[in-house]
Amino acid sequence: MSMAPLQQLLAEFADRRGWGPYHVPKNLAMALAGEAGELVAEFQWLTPEESARVMRDPEAADAVRMEMADVFSYLLRLADVLDVDLERALREKVARNEYRFPAPQSPTLER
Amino acid sequence: MSMAPLQQLLAEFADRRGWGPYHVPKNLAMALAGEAGELVAEFQWLTPEESARVMRDPEAADAVRMEMADVFSYLLRLADVLDVDLERALREKVARNEYRFPAPQSPTLER
Amino acid sequence: MSMAPLQQLLAEFADRRGWGPYHVPKNLAMALAGEAGELVAEFQWLTPEESARVMRDPEAADAVRMEMADVFSYLLRLADVLDVDLERALREKVARNEYRFPAPQSPTLER
Amino acid sequence: MSMAPLQQLLAEFADRRGWGPYHVPKNLAMALAGEAGELVAEFQWLTPEESARVMRDPEAADAVRMEMADVFSYLLRLADVLDVDLERALREKVARNEYRFPAPQSPTLER
Repeated sequence: MSMAPLQQLLAEFADRRGWGPYHVPKNLAMALAGEAGELVAEFQWLTPEESARVMRDPEAADAVRMEMADVFSYLLRLADVLDVDLERALREKVARNEYRFPAPQSPTLER
Repeated sequence: MSMAPLQQLLAEFADRRGWGPYHVPKNLAMALAGEAGELVAEFQWLTPEESARVMRDPEAADAVRMEMADVFSYLLRLADVLDVDLERALREKVARNEYRFPAPQSPTLER
Repeated sequence: MSMAPLQQLLAEFADRRGWGPYHVPKNLAMALAGEAGELVAEFQWLTPEESARVMRDPEAADAVRMEMADVFSYLLRLADVLDVDLERALREKVARNEYRFPAPQSPTLER
Repeated sequence: MSMAPLQQLLAEFADRRGWGPYHVPKNLAMALAGEAGELVAEFQWLTPEESARVMRDPEAADAVRMEMADVFSYLLRLADVLDVDLERALREKVARNEYRFPAPQSPTLER
């Protein structure tokens, strides 16, 4: 899996608009936080049960998908600008969490 | 590009710990917002210029990578639970933004 | 009601540590977002019903109070630095919201 | 200083619209995080220096004040619902921070 094509798409989108100089890590982290705020707002008045059915409402579903796309965009831009390999970082974090939160042994392994 | 292997890794991690019932969209959106807050905090006292050099400091670089991994994890989990195709949503958002923010014509195209 | 004494306390706290130059609005808004992320994280795995009982658990209650204090601190600092009167801004926002979200007529007024 | 009059204003506003049942702590923390996201977004493309002059632009100034009012509203509502005394919590947090971040001795005190 490579994020590079999406990152190139976003870099070109920004470059053609002269937005490159604004896309420093500090600003991109702020933009990501702003979009995460918009995403959480989509769910704020829903019960957990309603939130599980949110995609059945076409208008809400579109809003949720587009807010998730915004979060993803800024995460990809930030990774691009900082030269972070997101997949590798994620696998590394999961490995650390395996250690922090040991899973109970499965029944098979317990024997 | 497919997010499915990473999403399966995260789903299994959660399932083995019995976390599945907690991973409703409302809660995952909150967790994502929380991690976005931790990520933005890494940059809050840096100047924009310092933020562009953040990866030169090994300790800060590790913190930034791990916070980005956390954001990515919850975004992938949310996409999995809501059955949202993140790449497709991103391309759709970019297409809408092409319309909302028209790029100036390139010199070549202007001729 | 005046926020001035609390704002003076916070300004002096920052000044004595030489933090003044870091407390520009951009940075304070980031710090506030970071603390809001920590606050939302306190509630992320709780059901709405459990969240209503959160103060019965002394450890969770302390964490929630201290995160709220952090959010309040940065909001007060930001208001101080920008010379915003928080109470006046709040009353103005409520007035605008009265217009945006008209309340149903009370039984008395309907007659 | 008492927050009670503002909290009563907000409680009545919510009650007259039948919003009371939605204002559980979990939801209010989400709403606060959402508004903090909108506030940080006001500053995301500004340099720190531009952010210090943001109130000179009437349109930006209004947006910043209203986002701050939104954050304040949800913080006050949350404090009301959880029965948290915000001023007391703030003073307690400052006292703890005095301990965590000892200030250098002032020249007067050093003598």
